[in-house]
Amino acid sequence: MSTDNKTILISQEGAVRILTNSNPASRNAITPTLYAELSAALADAQADPETGAIVFTGAGDFFCSGGDLNLLAKRRELPASERRQILEGLNNLIRALRDCSKPVIAAVEGGAAGAGLSMALACDMLVSARDAFFTVAYVKVGLTPDGGATAFLSEFVSRQVLTEMCLTGDRMPAERLHALGAVNRLTDKGAALAEAIALAAKVANGPERASARIKSLCRQAHRATLEEQLDAEAVFMVESQADAEAAEGIGAFLGKRKADFAALRGRKQGAS
Amino acid sequence: MSTDNKTILISQEGAVRILTNSNPASRNAITPTLYAELSAALADAQADPETGAIVFTGAGDFFCSGGDLNLLAKRRELPASERRQILEGLNNLIRALRDCSKPVIAAVEGGAAGAGLSMALACDMLVSARDAFFTVAYVKVGLTPDGGATAFLSEFVSRQVLTEMCLTGDRMPAERLHALGAVNRLTDKGAALAEAIALAAKVANGPERASARIKSLCRQAHRATLEEQLDAEAVFMVESQADAEAAEGIGAFLGKRKADFAALRGRKQGAS
Amino acid sequence: MSTDNKTILISQEGAVRILTNSNPASRNAITPTLYAELSAALADAQADPETGAIVFTGAGDFFCSGGDLNLLAKRRELPASERRQILEGLNNLIRALRDCSKPVIAAVEGGAAGAGLSMALACDMLVSARDAFFTVAYVKVGLTPDGGATAFLSEFVSRQVLTEMCLTGDRMPAERLHALGAVNRLTDKGAALAEAIALAAKVANGPERASARIKSLCRQAHRATLEEQLDAEAVFMVESQADAEAAEGIGAFLGKRKADFAALRGRKQGAS
Repeated sequence: MSTDNKTILISQEGAVRILTNSNPASRNAITPTLYAELSAALADAQADPETGAIVFTGAGDFFCSGGDLNLLAKRRELPASERRQILEGLNNLIRALRDCSKPVIAAVEGGAAGAGLSMALACDMLVSARDAFFTVAYVKVGLTPDGGATAFLSEFVSRQVLTEMCLTGDRMPAERLHALGAVNRLTDKGAALAEAIALAAKVANGPERASARIKSLCRQAHRATLEEQLDAEAVFMVESQADAEAAEGIGAFLGKRKADFAALRGRKQGAS
Repeated sequence: MSTDNKTILISQEGAVRILTNSNPASRNAITPTLYAELSAALADAQADPETGAIVFTGAGDFFCSGGDLNLLAKRRELPASERRQILEGLNNLIRALRDCSKPVIAAVEGGAAGAGLSMALACDMLVSARDAFFTVAYVKVGLTPDGGATAFLSEFVSRQVLTEMCLTGDRMPAERLHALGAVNRLTDKGAALAEAIALAAKVANGPERASARIKSLCRQAHRATLEEQLDAEAVFMVESQADAEAAEGIGAFLGKRKADFAALRGRKQGAS
Repeated sequence: MSTDNKTILISQEGAVRILTNSNPASRNAITPTLYAELSAALADAQADPETGAIVFTGAGDFFCSGGDLNLLAKRRELPASERRQILEGLNNLIRALRDCSKPVIAAVEGGAAGAGLSMALACDMLVSARDAFFTVAYVKVGLTPDGGATAFLSEFVSRQVLTEMCLTGDRMPAERLHALGAVNRLTDKGAALAEAIALAAKVANGPERASARIKSLCRQAHRATLEEQLDAEAVFMVESQADAEAAEGIGAFLGKRKADFAALRGRKQGAS
């Protein structure tokens, strides 16, 4: 474990890796180094056999305020191709959150605005303080959403509400996102991180390779056709049935004992 | 009507065909004969001009507990190609439920687990006892979802909740599925079948060929593009306008009498 | 502004263009002239630099009862190709509502039935009186949905509820659509138009070109893949960053003053 990074702080609780975006001077606004550091930290956590799940949060009492407007004010002076390249940095981070084979849970205090919202919703699960808010923000400064915000929101809100959120930039309370299903757990103020770690610990003790297949199925489910999904599920089930994890899981069930998947973590797929 | 089948019991109430999965020794777990028997029973019901809608339920007080773990424990000894072939048996049943031209309504008591959940959600509508539960289950024994579970769930839950359900295998109460829209009717314990038959009888008296077109539109609506859906709707509307069912329906409306679509059931499309 | 049209009445309140479908003899049922008139009125509103958003409503106390059954009764006598052509008139109107670069808000009193439902849901946002109802209707007269009804409903209801609505034609109350997210604002009876104008005025004062990009992102979000959406968002963000609207918005934010986007309306994209 290293804490040499300046933007992303890294810690561990049991099988849970905790990644904290730390830029408290500006409510954890995105810095030029965030994308590369967070992607590298995710790759480290994925490679670590002791880690079963990841929590992503912001330092202090605010998740992430999005892009830094002082930087964005000068972005117009860059050629379009460079602006696009910077945006691909965000897009690559979104892809890294989704492609990481281990579940990533966002823990939100205070609020998530702009690209902060995109990062929170790109995670596999979301724990939020009850008084936190979520906002697409961009329109208020004449900009448009990025980082997959409109894609992720469309997975759980109607087009009518999506349009209102994006055209007005109004805040949506965490309770509304919970009712719509995008927030898995609502907590008291200040308790989001602990609850996210508890949820992460629960799934970290599950079957590692089955969980990776499940994450893959879940992240494509809203966009794939039924035939694509039936095929992906069948391909994975054929793998799962031959995996030592299934032997352990089914054996434990039939033997009326608790399955011990943690002992199988870090092995190659299918080894038994 | 025949009751020679061992797994699927068949009965009729008016225009409603009732198919009951019966394997009470193991809470209606899936048996090797289920897929072929249920597919054949659906084809029979579709071909019967007296039948307008179908109810699919489980014998006794539990809908279906999914795969038989004693069988699954030995599945790993089969070559991958055979395991895949067995999974296609489930996939073909899911396709049969969807491709059947007549509406299929699931009636759930107790619970629906694993592939039992997939079968319940593959139906066109769903009636459930208030105290029943739904679970993706698989992960608990080191396996991954199949039979379209992740596709069907994604039609009404967020990716965040889908991921939690699949990674934890936790039970989701019928009331939550009702709030999310996947359960059309909640009933008291023991009353799901009667309510499902009542809902089936209502739609069984509708226009048979228009209803088949509607089922086709509804089962593709969540995955098609707008242009694909506008085109499919227009193709069907052109057919519907020329159908004797529309002549009867519009004529009844303008004549201020009740439409009698049942008399037109079993005729070829478009005959008037 | 002109009121020469017979079916579509046109008025203006500040930056909000109001288009009213007026055929009170039959609860604003669709007339042969509606499609062309409404499409032309949308094009006019889009071209007008004084207009920032559009409200679409029905005259009197009912939004739109859908197709005229007296006309539909004779439709079967036309060749299939002519029936299809008439349906493309409706489809082209749906496309015009979506392709209009300015936000269109539906204001619904009383109810929206059949193609009236399709038109209400094709709009970007929806304001409805609390006692209004929505119905797919068609099946009651032996017909099948058109105008994108099944596509639009699938963006916010489960397949199970979509199927029930389309197979039964039962009314769904505005409150249920609000809970599901398709209605942005519920109002008292008679107050939908005023509330829709207020919401339109709010977004009409936003950045015109950013809002057009946002509308485009929102209308494709439910159907696009994540990669398609990440790409579309990045293309638009590159444009937005260079636009005078962003200079005004970011400058106002950093200068702690209110942004004045209205002054930039009607300029060419990117001019600063």
